[in-house]
Amino acid sequence: MTRHDKVRIIEIKKSIFEDNDLEAAQLRNELREQGTFLLNLMSSPGAGKTTTLLRTIEAMKNRYKIGVMEADIDSDVDAKSIATTGIRTIQLHTGGMCHLDAGMTRQGLSEIDAASLDLCILENVGNLVCPAEFDTGASANAMILSVPEGDDKPLKYPLMFSVCDVVLINKTDVIPYFDFDMDRCIANIHMRNPNAVIIPISAKTGDGVEAWVDWLSKELDAYA
Amino acid sequence: MTRHDKVRIIEIKKSIFEDNDLEAAQLRNELREQGTFLLNLMSSPGAGKTTTLLRTIEAMKNRYKIGVMEADIDSDVDAKSIATTGIRTIQLHTGGMCHLDAGMTRQGLSEIDAASLDLCILENVGNLVCPAEFDTGASANAMILSVPEGDDKPLKYPLMFSVCDVVLINKTDVIPYFDFDMDRCIANIHMRNPNAVIIPISAKTGDGVEAWVDWLSKELDAYA
Repeated sequence: MTRHDKVRIIEIKKSIFEDNDLEAAQLRNELREQGTFLLNLMSSPGAGKTTTLLRTIEAMKNRYKIGVMEADIDSDVDAKSIATTGIRTIQLHTGGMCHLDAGMTRQGLSEIDAASLDLCILENVGNLVCPAEFDTGASANAMILSVPEGDDKPLKYPLMFSVCDVVLINKTDVIPYFDFDMDRCIANIHMRNPNAVIIPISAKTGDGVEAWVDWLSKELDAYA
Repeated sequence: MTRHDKVRIIEIKKSIFEDNDLEAAQLRNELREQGTFLLNLMSSPGAGKTTTLLRTIEAMKNRYKIGVMEADIDSDVDAKSIATTGIRTIQLHTGGMCHLDAGMTRQGLSEIDAASLDLCILENVGNLVCPAEFDTGASANAMILSVPEGDDKPLKYPLMFSVCDVVLINKTDVIPYFDFDMDRCIANIHMRNPNAVIIPISAKTGDGVEAWVDWLSKELDAYA
């Protein structure tokens, strides 16, 4: 089997459900009953979702059964990267859609056989607007804000920061080369969401990844 | 008048037109008749639209009458930055919408009195997905891809690269700190859009901005 053969591409269809919130609540209950924690990971394009996932999987794959659903409008470059870790990976193509709703997420979960996983991670479409508006049914929402994007993003994309349980501030290794004020960034995030857990990381160097893996492991252990 | 007073905030409403392509074509014709060039500027969040605009305005404001419409879901931080240049600036709030269509753009053009401008720039919502799907009626589409986002973005957001006349590759000053291959990036863009003009710039240092200003000035002079 070549590396390319490992990644199945699933064309998911727009949800038929009219009430996404209801569908999401049902899906969240089903996931809890079957003991699968679904993490919905969101960010702008290029904020480092895939690199962060590679680090996360490396740190956690011996302890938990992990699978990844890569959602993209097109291409399978990220799914191929994730598949190199040896964990179960599928590529979801959204057919031009800018987000996933609960019905689309359910299609992916069925294809990846999520019931046999402890942790299923949905890498959502790179977009700070639309994915925040649709509950996928996830057990937790995480987002990555990267240093080059700037510390003012919580002012401009309020809903995304409001719906996330945890915000990773990625690419801390390049802070010296950008006008980025970490204290101001944290204050801006907490203005939108006082309960957000904020973890600065560099997925490139590995700095801070341990704190993130600790947070996620505790969530998983409390869930089981 | 305080700095804050200079920026009017307009709440634009979802378009009532069913056929956006038709409405966009009509708007484009009207703009041509009145001699206003509308530039639709798109990018991911934090790619440097506002900083690029500040450089562009500084280089062109003595030669052309310029106005800027800043579109955002919330906040007016960008409009305040642009207003410091002394040019006409309004803030458009999209009411949660992830893009502008031709009808929404028309509302903004009316509010800014575009007929008295040579160049009106629409800074679209930071998003690589939805703005590409809606023709605003602009005379030209431009996008900014920033180095930290990665050279693979044309593979993942094909439509955005297809609809743009010009692609600025911004933040070239930080290339040494990222795994970014300029040749591969250019090849990926041209795969999506063989006619795209590609101009590497650093809005921070000013590097390459002259080539961009030359391109835009030539478009304006040919349009007049």
